[in-house]
Amino acid sequence: MDDQTRANAVHRLKSIAGHVNGIVRMLEEDRYCIDVIKQIQATQMALSRVSETILDGHLRTCVTTAIQDDDPSERERVLNEIIEVFRHTS
Amino acid sequence: MDDQTRANAVHRLKSIAGHVNGIVRMLEEDRYCIDVIKQIQATQMALSRVSETILDGHLRTCVTTAIQDDDPSERERVLNEIIEVFRHTS
Amino acid sequence: MDDQTRANAVHRLKSIAGHVNGIVRMLEEDRYCIDVIKQIQATQMALSRVSETILDGHLRTCVTTAIQDDDPSERERVLNEIIEVFRHTS
Amino acid sequence: MDDQTRANAVHRLKSIAGHVNGIVRMLEEDRYCIDVIKQIQATQMALSRVSETILDGHLRTCVTTAIQDDDPSERERVLNEIIEVFRHTS
Repeated sequence: MDDQTRANAVHRLKSIAGHVNGIVRMLEEDRYCIDVIKQIQATQMALSRVSETILDGHLRTCVTTAIQDDDPSERERVLNEIIEVFRHTS
Repeated sequence: MDDQTRANAVHRLKSIAGHVNGIVRMLEEDRYCIDVIKQIQATQMALSRVSETILDGHLRTCVTTAIQDDDPSERERVLNEIIEVFRHTS
Repeated sequence: MDDQTRANAVHRLKSIAGHVNGIVRMLEEDRYCIDVIKQIQATQMALSRVSETILDGHLRTCVTTAIQDDDPSERERVLNEIIEVFRHTS
Repeated sequence: MDDQTRANAVHRLKSIAGHVNGIVRMLEEDRYCIDVIKQIQATQMALSRVSETILDGHLRTCVTTAIQDDDPSERERVLNEIIEVFRHTS
């Protein structure tokens, strides 16, 4: 992953950690359950966007390099990892 | 939501916020992209479990009360909210 | 579930079965993989909408009746089922 | 996608179309809503497995070829498509 992708992901994750702490405060203030659940769902979507950014960087660096190289077992490994990531989201 | 459900959700969310900060460190240490994505996916699953706990508490308190009460518009409101939560997860 | 909800769900599911058979034809005609995957994803979203309709009907009939009745174990059962459905989507 | 992957996907999709028609019959026989929803969720999971198989074939053929070729815009296109597929599942 390149530096810009990493910096972008770090920035978003810090903001997500802040968001999660905000949800803790909502619970401590006894806010309405459905509003809390909606905030949790928003956090999950924000995490999906971070994964997407990291996967994008990964495809353009490690995966591209592995596929252009001559090592079939390495190629196999990176492609299997993509499928595994996909399996856990779908 | 009862006190135990709230305490349980607060405890888990604090642990999730810590987990997200751990992922920030993984990125700063330039850890392998796929390992980072797997940790993000684990965080999303942990958030789903918290939503589930809160929804469970909500069904047993607010929703049960609204359905037992005589106000059809309030009943309508709580049921529509459940459907909306379901829509955003599926 | 009332008759209109059921008729609506039947209608949509028949259309979804037709859609799936259309995807079979796409594969037999050797259409581009990504286009096939997009059609599969559209089918999954259409199925989510049907589940939503059925859940909505279920909440307004069986769940409402169970919660208004005096049998705590029956109430427990219907609420646990809602949570289980939610767990499998999130 | 190779012939075996395609045959496998066709076989599974035909079975899924049969499954969807079975859910129509469940509705016509007025079966319990939650049982119907569980069958719809099983169908969605089966569709995810088909997408996975097709994506796997796609990565090993079109994507590998595009990345090994010298056309940057084609490479860009196939990688963007993977991200788009991922976005719609997560």
